[in-house]
Formats: sequence, structure tokens, C-alpha cells
Amino acid sequence: MKTLLIPKQVITANPNDDILTNTAVEIFDDTISDLIDLSNFDKKNYEGEILEFPNLTLIPGFIQTHVHLCQTLFRGLADDLELLDWLSKKIFPFENAHSPESLRASAKLGIAELQKGGTTTIVDMGTLRHEQVIFEELNHSGMRAFAGKCLIDQNSLFPEFSESTSEGLKSVNELANEFHDSGDGRLKYAFSPRFVLSCTEALLKESFEMSKDHTGSIYHTHSSENKDEIKAVWDLHRMGNIEYFSSIGVLGESTLLAHCIHVDEYEQAILSDTGTRVMHCPSTNLKLGSGIANIPKYLNIGINVSLGADGPPCNNNLSIFNEMKLAAMIQKPFRGATSMNARDVFRMATINGAEAVGLADETGSIEINKKADLVLLDLNGVGHPLTDENLYSTIVYACDVNSVKEVMINGQWIVKEKNLLNYDESEIVAEGKTELNKLLNRIN
Amino acid sequence: MKTLLIPKQVITANPNDDILTNTAVEIFDDTISDLIDLSNFDKKNYEGEILEFPNLTLIPGFIQTHVHLCQTLFRGLADDLELLDWLSKKIFPFENAHSPESLRASAKLGIAELQKGGTTTIVDMGTLRHEQVIFEELNHSGMRAFAGKCLIDQNSLFPEFSESTSEGLKSVNELANEFHDSGDGRLKYAFSPRFVLSCTEALLKESFEMSKDHTGSIYHTHSSENKDEIKAVWDLHRMGNIEYFSSIGVLGESTLLAHCIHVDEYEQAILSDTGTRVMHCPSTNLKLGSGIANIPKYLNIGINVSLGADGPPCNNNLSIFNEMKLAAMIQKPFRGATSMNARDVFRMATINGAEAVGLADETGSIEINKKADLVLLDLNGVGHPLTDENLYSTIVYACDVNSVKEVMINGQWIVKEKNLLNYDESEIVAEGKTELNKLLNRIN
Repeated sequence: MKTLLIPKQVITANPNDDILTNTAVEIFDDTISDLIDLSNFDKKNYEGEILEFPNLTLIPGFIQTHVHLCQTLFRGLADDLELLDWLSKKIFPFENAHSPESLRASAKLGIAELQKGGTTTIVDMGTLRHEQVIFEELNHSGMRAFAGKCLIDQNSLFPEFSESTSEGLKSVNELANEFHDSGDGRLKYAFSPRFVLSCTEALLKESFEMSKDHTGSIYHTHSSENKDEIKAVWDLHRMGNIEYFSSIGVLGESTLLAHCIHVDEYEQAILSDTGTRVMHCPSTNLKLGSGIANIPKYLNIGINVSLGADGPPCNNNLSIFNEMKLAAMIQKPFRGATSMNARDVFRMATINGAEAVGLADETGSIEINKKADLVLLDLNGVGHPLTDENLYSTIVYACDVNSVKEVMINGQWIVKEKNLLNYDESEIVAEGKTELNKLLNRIN
Repeated sequence: MKTLLIPKQVITANPNDDILTNTAVEIFDDTISDLIDLSNFDKKNYEGEILEFPNLTLIPGFIQTHVHLCQTLFRGLADDLELLDWLSKKIFPFENAHSPESLRASAKLGIAELQKGGTTTIVDMGTLRHEQVIFEELNHSGMRAFAGKCLIDQNSLFPEFSESTSEGLKSVNELANEFHDSGDGRLKYAFSPRFVLSCTEALLKESFEMSKDHTGSIYHTHSSENKDEIKAVWDLHRMGNIEYFSSIGVLGESTLLAHCIHVDEYEQAILSDTGTRVMHCPSTNLKLGSGIANIPKYLNIGINVSLGADGPPCNNNLSIFNEMKLAAMIQKPFRGATSMNARDVFRMATINGAEAVGLADETGSIEINKKADLVLLDLNGVGHPLTDENLYSTIVYACDVNSVKEVMINGQWIVKEKNLLNYDESEIVAEGKTELNKLLNRIN
């Protein structure tokens, strides 16, 4: 059956930046089948369901291209630390102690938070073990996602948390064969070496080669986040992260690098020339004291930049609204108040993310024949602007996750009236607490 | 009658940073009359009302020491501009067009947003005309507040928006006589010259002298926000803002300077030596491209720093949670991930604000004999940490205004179950829209 959504207005994020009023969005199965001008439209004789949202604004679902579902349990347990301490003292020991049950609890809480906040597609960096659990939860949740176990075959920060090169490649191969293109095509595999310092050259190259065998998969890692990390990479390879990745041939349009904060012009040119994607995580970059990436410059030289909230222990939430607000605001003291305007940031959180993962024909904007990944926002009430004159500004500067009223992914309702349809919130919170306690006991 | 509040825990913000469990807070009239250890307490025979909040966390009401209620209507209408353009092209023309009705609508919306978000005391910079309306609304709302009309007797940015020195001083004298210490003592007068560029020396000095005649009043202005502003002050006076204020004798413990971003060591020493208060507005400082104040340094040399959201058109909301998160996060890329920890930021948003306005014996912490300015937060559920181990981190990094469940000011309930008791939200939003339209028509 067809469904017609009639919102107050439609922010399309299409190439013309169209904001449509008096327009219905028709959904058939999992797809946006039509955009209908209502001026001369006969609702009474429409053969399908009509859902009217006269006070809500329809936007494309948000896309977060860098998150860590496996870390949701650890929120609030790793504050006020720099990256390498944060990894060695907290995050690696925590991830190392995951059981399938604790990982599942973590994934549920992360997915629930993302969906309630209007995020419909994610790129998830998994952990070393039990990755199938993440795919199972992503499948159950209705999320659109790229996911993959993280690869670590050397770890001076926390040696226990690693495996041999061959073990890693073998399990990745099995996972990719099982889960790439699963879940009605919603789920894709992300080959995910953790970062340069935790990977041998063989691991980085062979996992990249493997990704080429799975059409539509991506290659996802961290890069150039922190000055100590960059110095350690330099000590190992006499190169920066990006120069090194380039030298071993793993960059390109299906390679996604999170952070890219400290990147000189030489390395910026490599990113631009290879079409490598940058994922900007401003709240994490501030909270871990890492720095502020020159995103306006990256956009100017044609680098695709999208947004992600990263892991809950480093920001400390998975709100695309916080990331948008920060992405807009943190550039301005350095590059002027007119830099990083709200419209550009909104596109970073939607269509740019779709382009980054090769899904520009499938999601990231409201256009005919795209999948129905949609969010209805309530932009009214105390705390909101009183006019619709500057809707991008309203969304980027004045909203938060509580503005999200309804969410649809792949034509399925996921959130109705702010309630998750696929999860019981108090149940998953209780499960999270139990599993966190057990995990902390396993460490002690 | 006495009322006993029994929350999950009490974050006191007292000098010992006590976080109390199994503790009741007793309210008598407008005052915290006791903190009662419940270990051996007989609830059944207590003579008074007992309200139990087993899942909520009780904290002192937040204090925002720099806001502009008069600008709430203009949210979203002045984005992506630097300070002096923002003032001359947008904010001064808008404020200049205020009628008593539009100003009242603006005040209502601002107060409602602040109260729903857990702010119980504000320092408001008023506008040039109709200031009595602000006091009337503050009185009606139950807010604790310092307010005052802004003084402008020269205005090269927008000449219409000024008055003569004598007119300004006369009306301030009348307002202070009428409203200082009104509203059961909740309302105090803030003598509020707008900023150096808009004030003659006579106005700055005489309004400061006048403030000395009103015990408990404060002197509230802007300073050192933007490099162009600072250059213009230099061109006029051959001094920085703070050096100039010092030279004319208007600094001291009852003087509050908003922003203080670009302040060299010489001027920092003046602030410290005079006991002048600094109000930090991180979201505004980012969004207007102004810069990042070295707050850890200011705190180190003993300057009192508190927080404010500034005006809604420059941030674009009045959330103390956004300000706390940013205050913590924006320092870290420059001064390390361990700088500006969550506990220090929480104190900036509570007890430091009380100290700034001379109310340290009256509000800002939960201690016996202080006024009952209290907030109950819900720190549970999806998106929150799973333990209470780091409550300051939870509040600063993971919460937002939607965590605020109940608010009490001066012993009176102001918000119950997230609903404002003194305002009808849809009514004040409708009124705001009507008044904004009329105001924009007056400009065109």
C-alpha cells in the first residue's frame, strides 16, 4: 500500500536545496515513490493511507558516518583524558572485557539513542570480538548501517587487546561473507582496521584488498586525530597517517577516515586527489583535546566531509544535533562568523554522509526513487525561532534530539510520537546496567 | 507548612562538594530549613508534606549571569554575522522597534525557556525603553533576577537607538527606586551601560555612582568581546576595555563584565586585583566568531567566572546545559583534555554565579538557611551514563534541558513534571509570533 506523508514543509537536501510547502511525500514499500504538489490534488480519491503532520517538518534521516556502538556502556567512565591515555587506560580494557551479552546491550542502547535522535544510517566501528552480535542488533533494529569488526594485530597501548594478522583477516572474511548486503540490503560491511598504530602494513593492505571483493563495502579507519598519535606514526613510518595510507595504496572513494584534524596541505591534497572521505567528529575532537579540523578548507578543495558523534565515552552522547551545532560554531572564532553556515552543516549531516558511503542514489535526501529514510521534526514551541524563515539555522542552532518526533527507515516506522517501536527503553537500560556491572567485575 | 523533598541524591555545590544520598531537604516557606539524614528518620511522624523523587537528582538551581530577555523574539533572524554587524544590521534595529507589548512577549518566552531548563536566577541586560515591562514579567514569573535597562548615549552603529545622558540616568534612577529589592526581594537592579562604545564616560561613571546608592545592586556591562570592538575602544581611549573601566573607577566586586575574551595579562591582573566578575558565554563567543576566553587561567588567578547563554539570536538558545558542555569542551584543544573538568564547570553554573551577584549566602548551593532555589534532574534512560559514579560529568556532558523535571524558586514550584506553572506555552508562543510580525512591520 502507498502512504502519503503531508508535513508542514519538506526540506529535501536535493541539489537545488529545495524546501517545499504544500507537498506530499508518497512512500511505496521501502521507497519514496512520488513528491506530490497538493495545489490541485484530490485527497479524497487517493488510494492509500494519508498521514498529515501539519506542524512537523520532514527532513531526510540523518547519517552519522563514525560511531562506536560497542562503547555505549562506557559513557561517563572515561572523562577528561587525552586520546592515547583514553585508549590504554579505559577504552581498550573495557572493549577487551566485552562478552557477546555486554556487546549486545551496548549496541541496543547506542542504536536506540541514535534512532530516537533521528539518525537513520550509521557507519559503526566495531570491536575485536563478537562482531556478529552487532550485525544481529542492527538487523533487528531496522537501522541502515555499515559495520565491521575492528582489526588490531599490534597493540602497545594494551597488548591483550589484539589478535594475529591471519586470525583477523580470516574472521573479517567470514563476517563480510555472512553480513555484507544482508537485512534487505540495509546492512553492508565496513572493513575497519582500528588505526595505523594498531595495525601491521599487511593487515591494512590485505583488508583493503578484501574490501574490493565486496562491491558496495567501505574501508573505515581513524587518522590524524591527536598530536601524540601522529608523532608515534611518524616514529614508525617517517610519514604522516595520510601519506602512509597513500603509500600503501589504501585511499580512495570507498575509504573513510575519521577525524583528520592535523593534516597539512600536502596531505590535504592527497585526500582531495584520491577522493578519500573525511568524517568530522567535533565534540570528540574538543573533549579529547585533540584539536579543530579545518573543515571549511577541506570542503573548498572538494573533500567530502560528513559527521559522526563517535563513541559515547568521548562526547558524551550520540546526538547529531550537538555535532551539527559544534561543526558550525567551532570554526567561527578562527575563520569568521560567516564560515560554516547552517545549510552547509545540514548537508554534511545528510547528503554528504550518503555520498561518503556510496549511497547517494539511495538515501541522504528526499527525492523520488530514494529509500524512505525520513525524520519528522517539531520546530515549534518555547526555545525555537518564531518564523520558518531560516530553517537550516533552526535545525542546526536551536534544536536538539528532543525535536525528533517520528522516524522512518527503509519505509518502516522506527519512532512514533518519540517512542521507539523496536526497543523497550527501560528494559534495555536495565540490561545495560547489568551487563556493565558484570563487565567491570570481569576487569577487576 | 514544611515540605520534605527526598530525591535519589543531593548534589549540594557546598564548599566540600558534598553529594548526599539518603538525605531529605526540608523547605520552610522560601528557605532550606534543614538537611536531614534519613538513616534514623521517622517519616510517619513527620509533621509536613513529604515528596519523594526516588529516581531524580536534586541540584541547586542554575544561575545565568548574562542574558538578554529582550532579544528572544529575534532568535534565528541574525545568524552568521560578526558582533558589530550583528548589532548594527540586526539587533539594534530590532530592539529599537520594541513596543511594550513586543518586549513583554519576548520576556515571557525567554523566562519560560530559562525556567523549563532549570535556571532559577538570571542577570538580564535590558533594552533602552520600556524596562518596567521586564520587571513586571520577572515578578509574575517567580524568577530570581537582576535586571536593568541598558544605557546608550552614543551609538555610531545605529544612531536612533540612543538617548541623552541625562534622560538615561533619570530613567535608571526611577527604575532602580521602583524595582530594586522588589518581588519579595527576588528582584534587584542591575545598572547596565551597554558597552564602552555606546556610552560616554559621564554615563559610565554616574551610573556606577548611582549603583552605590542601592545596596545589593550590581553594575553589568559587556567587555573585550571582539577584536574590532577592542580596536574601536583603543581608537577612542588609547586603552583596552578593562584598563579603561579601571581608569574611570567602575570596577570592583559588584561589577560584572560579560565575555572578556581578549584580555592580556595586564588586564587580567586588573580583573583579579579589583575582584571584578567575568561572565563567560561560550556559545555566543563561538557563534559570533569572537574567540575563546582563557577561563582556566582566570580561575587560576582567582577571578570569579560564571556562565550565561547571552541572547537567543546569538547562540541560539538559553540552555545552561549547552553553555556548560561548551565551557568544558572548548578549552581542551588548547589547554589539554584534563583542563576545565566537569566539577569546576558545574560550580561556574551554580555557586560561582551566586558569588558573582553577591548572593552567595542566599542561593547557588543546597545548604541550610539558603533560599529554596532547586532543580530535580532525571539522569536516567537512553542517552545517559549507566552509573552514578561521575555525576558532574553526567550533568555537564550528557544532559540537556530535557533532563529538567521540576524547578522551585524561592520555595515556590515553577515547573512540575516539565510543565511551566506560570505560563501557558502555546499562548506565549502565539503572542510572540504576533508581536514579532508587528515589530518587523514597524521596521519596514
